[in-house]
Amino acid sequence: MAKNRLRAIPLGGAGEVGRNMWVLEQNDEILVLDCGVMFPEADMLGVDLVLPDITYLRDQKDKIKAIVLTHGHEDHIGAIPYLVPELDFPPIYGTTLTLGMLTGKLKEHRLLDRVRLMKMQAGEPFTIGSFTIEPFSVAHSIPDTVGLAIDTPVGLVIYLTDWKFDHTPVDGRPTDLVKLSELGRRSPLLLITDCVRVESKGYTPSEQVVGEAFDSIFATAPGRIIVATFASNVSRVQQVIDSAEAYGRKVIVAGRSMENTTRIALELGYLRAQQGTLIRPQEAAGLTDDQVAVICTGSQGEPMSALARMANRDYPHVKIKEGDTVVVSATPIPGNEVSVNRVINNLFRLGAEVIYSDNPSGLAVHVSGHAAQEELKMVLAILRPEFVVPFHGDYRHMMLYRKLALGMGGLFSNSNVIIPENGVVMEFSRNYARTTGKVPVGYVYVDGTTVGDVGQVVVRDRQLLARDGILMVVVSIDRTTGELVAGPDVVSRGFVYMRQSDDLIESTKNIVRDALSRRNGGGKTEIDSAFVNRKIKDVVSDYLYGQTRRRPMVLPVVMEV
Amino acid sequence: MAKNRLRAIPLGGAGEVGRNMWVLEQNDEILVLDCGVMFPEADMLGVDLVLPDITYLRDQKDKIKAIVLTHGHEDHIGAIPYLVPELDFPPIYGTTLTLGMLTGKLKEHRLLDRVRLMKMQAGEPFTIGSFTIEPFSVAHSIPDTVGLAIDTPVGLVIYLTDWKFDHTPVDGRPTDLVKLSELGRRSPLLLITDCVRVESKGYTPSEQVVGEAFDSIFATAPGRIIVATFASNVSRVQQVIDSAEAYGRKVIVAGRSMENTTRIALELGYLRAQQGTLIRPQEAAGLTDDQVAVICTGSQGEPMSALARMANRDYPHVKIKEGDTVVVSATPIPGNEVSVNRVINNLFRLGAEVIYSDNPSGLAVHVSGHAAQEELKMVLAILRPEFVVPFHGDYRHMMLYRKLALGMGGLFSNSNVIIPENGVVMEFSRNYARTTGKVPVGYVYVDGTTVGDVGQVVVRDRQLLARDGILMVVVSIDRTTGELVAGPDVVSRGFVYMRQSDDLIESTKNIVRDALSRRNGGGKTEIDSAFVNRKIKDVVSDYLYGQTRRRPMVLPVVMEV
Repeated sequence: MAKNRLRAIPLGGAGEVGRNMWVLEQNDEILVLDCGVMFPEADMLGVDLVLPDITYLRDQKDKIKAIVLTHGHEDHIGAIPYLVPELDFPPIYGTTLTLGMLTGKLKEHRLLDRVRLMKMQAGEPFTIGSFTIEPFSVAHSIPDTVGLAIDTPVGLVIYLTDWKFDHTPVDGRPTDLVKLSELGRRSPLLLITDCVRVESKGYTPSEQVVGEAFDSIFATAPGRIIVATFASNVSRVQQVIDSAEAYGRKVIVAGRSMENTTRIALELGYLRAQQGTLIRPQEAAGLTDDQVAVICTGSQGEPMSALARMANRDYPHVKIKEGDTVVVSATPIPGNEVSVNRVINNLFRLGAEVIYSDNPSGLAVHVSGHAAQEELKMVLAILRPEFVVPFHGDYRHMMLYRKLALGMGGLFSNSNVIIPENGVVMEFSRNYARTTGKVPVGYVYVDGTTVGDVGQVVVRDRQLLARDGILMVVVSIDRTTGELVAGPDVVSRGFVYMRQSDDLIESTKNIVRDALSRRNGGGKTEIDSAFVNRKIKDVVSDYLYGQTRRRPMVLPVVMEV
Repeated sequence: MAKNRLRAIPLGGAGEVGRNMWVLEQNDEILVLDCGVMFPEADMLGVDLVLPDITYLRDQKDKIKAIVLTHGHEDHIGAIPYLVPELDFPPIYGTTLTLGMLTGKLKEHRLLDRVRLMKMQAGEPFTIGSFTIEPFSVAHSIPDTVGLAIDTPVGLVIYLTDWKFDHTPVDGRPTDLVKLSELGRRSPLLLITDCVRVESKGYTPSEQVVGEAFDSIFATAPGRIIVATFASNVSRVQQVIDSAEAYGRKVIVAGRSMENTTRIALELGYLRAQQGTLIRPQEAAGLTDDQVAVICTGSQGEPMSALARMANRDYPHVKIKEGDTVVVSATPIPGNEVSVNRVINNLFRLGAEVIYSDNPSGLAVHVSGHAAQEELKMVLAILRPEFVVPFHGDYRHMMLYRKLALGMGGLFSNSNVIIPENGVVMEFSRNYARTTGKVPVGYVYVDGTTVGDVGQVVVRDRQLLARDGILMVVVSIDRTTGELVAGPDVVSRGFVYMRQSDDLIESTKNIVRDALSRRNGGGKTEIDSAFVNRKIKDVVSDYLYGQTRRRPMVLPVVMEV
């Protein structure tokens, strides 16, 4: 790479929502920004998590100076325990709460003593190699979020992701408009920004409006109040606690991640509660229903979350009953609509009153943590960067963002708004940008304890299995004569209910017998189990499709005895 | 059943959206209302369609006097080809377009000559046994929709599903307010009504507003215009044709169901187009892009639909390019959000401008065909039925509907708004209602050509296969000595990528060998392949979970040779 060039490469998060990770590279120094996970899409069957692909970094670990984190959400820190061991544990920079959230993860993975955690703070610049980094406060749905102003020899880069303007945030740290104005005066080279809410007009409301909705619910609910939200949304949790204290209720914290996050946020001073407000479930026994509130996980309908278990009458400490008011303080992430609906329907079935973001109550029980159109425009107007790269959104979001930028009275031209793709290398000098190549990127799946060994092939097999099931044909063949010694045996799962499909199974066996005898009838040939295998697969697949119009995976097993 | 009792039983559509089917029963006479399919939920893996459960009707086919259909949507007529053969082909009543849509289906299933289709018409009452039925016009997203006023000895039943008020419908047939008022004066006993849009305040806009949006798009789009919508939304198709004619474009009809429906609607006079407006794809060759429009299927992102194929560069006649404007004239049905997003993102990638219902254009390219809150209230205020049963909605919709009814100044009390469940028998006399039992209901799956033999067990297997895949262990055992003759052979799909997991596969084989030799070491016992089977399953499952934290389906096959 030529000198005085800056490279920027997204390893995840471009054209998708999740697994955010950027590489900034200059003069043999690499800075990594964020390192998140993505939750699997519906057709990534059985996959737990999706990681960024770090193939590009593996061969140049020694160049990595640091990983710098903007905030403590899963899609920005979740991949660290899986990936830092492969990168020889570079130092990790983050704000207090972000490192607090990360510490919990590292403990679970027994990695805490191997990682160097470096605390940074809004307004306090620090230098790593030839990069000087100044974090600055931005408002988002988790406290202690920062944007990063990164001084490089080529120019000023501003990495501003997961932010909105909130002039009355619950944690008292609004997006630092003064700092943004100052950065704008320094003629930034490049702005990298999220764009996931570009479809929404106007401004995203302040987190404070949710507190007002909570107050009106707490003022009138006759029985218990159960609020489900993201565990990481500490400000939301704070507002539940505030409303509970104002209206004389105690608060039970339910769900593993909610318990963890609340504990960390309390310890680090990001959450405040009066002595005695937070109680254990057993302590609710002596209270009347209108003295109890519950804050819990499950706002996305996740099957094992506290709220989903309550909705399925499977949560020991909170049995939903008539008089309960359940607040789903979140909107479904695309793909989760059906699970969320199922949970809401079941809560209604159990007699609860359910308040969720689309329902007719009109109460604003959720606001987004991301900037809407006018905020996105305002930041462009303040910073006026030479180049802007939207990411943290689907392809359509990035295209709509470009349209929005181009609509700002000639401030930007088509070539100044760059639409990234994962792995595409963007190279910048003081006054031009170009793409110079592509580094390998793919989906890296986490399934159970293993990273990466569940690949595209495995997931593709699961998709086939899920569609029409599997049918195995097992035969034992004499290894010298090629004759059928035992079988064919047919076993099937997910195709037809075997007990009711005797005829189909029997006729399949006959088809196999015929095919094998026809082959062997022509004279003795050397046994070739690959051929027998293929033969069985073809005749059985065709036969079953003809009979059922379905295509189960046909898996022959040929044993030579 | 006592005399002068009326029974109403939903066999589908209560607490779910789809497979609508009602039974009305009195004095040994049964009337079936609608007979629809439901599209499978995400976890009904590999299932094509879900049907109502007609177990209750099978033993009393002779009592069934008729099936009466309200309109031609899949969730009201789609199950007929699958179920009428099992019900000895009772006569089927429907309006002209409804029977036209049904005829196409019956032809495909080679059933047309066995079914008796009886034409009915709004405003023309007819009698079946002791029921007198008067269909009346209602506005919905397909023309020729009717509500049913059903006179019974016990009282007047009004079956009003899939309707909204639209005083300026495209087909010129608004919901018949005068008829509704007349019915209200006759003190109806029971109203059965849909409630799926109860979360929406105010009134659903007229279909006409979509025409205005189309006009503004057709007036300005520089290249081709491609509009995707539901094939059955004949009024939407009409408005595309109208805009095309107004702005000098020809229209290509793309997608099998769009072609079929358009042909039927043209033949029956429900769709009007000037000579030469509708062209075949080949005829577009001589036209400039701004003279071409396409109306196609795929508004739900269905994988093999015309729009999805265009988005995947797999549709021969329409290759998406820069300058194209694509209009997605629908909102995603819950569960389809991800597929719809994927199609929209790919269209953007190919350079098209995409206009969809949530995007910042603000153009109303879709309106619902269902009534919103004020319309639901207005019908209750006009009809003032003794009892009302909401259906055609999730459980939450039915509960919110009850709340809405109870809020109407004492017009209804809790016991007058009955929340149904599939299979629950509601019995009515002139002044009371009660539930008297439950008939069997379950999901009946259609997969490929077979109905019903894919059951809960098969779908459950597919869910297991989809999560962690399958691992088969095959052994050949000497049937007299119980000794291992060949194997263990291990084959896996959807669990780990076998080529990269030699160690795991080898060690699994060893585990099996150990387990079998330990067992046989203790002395000769009679061979028991069920025991061997169980043994292999247990040791392998435990071993794999310990190694990977995953639980593939373990399927041992024991061959005796």
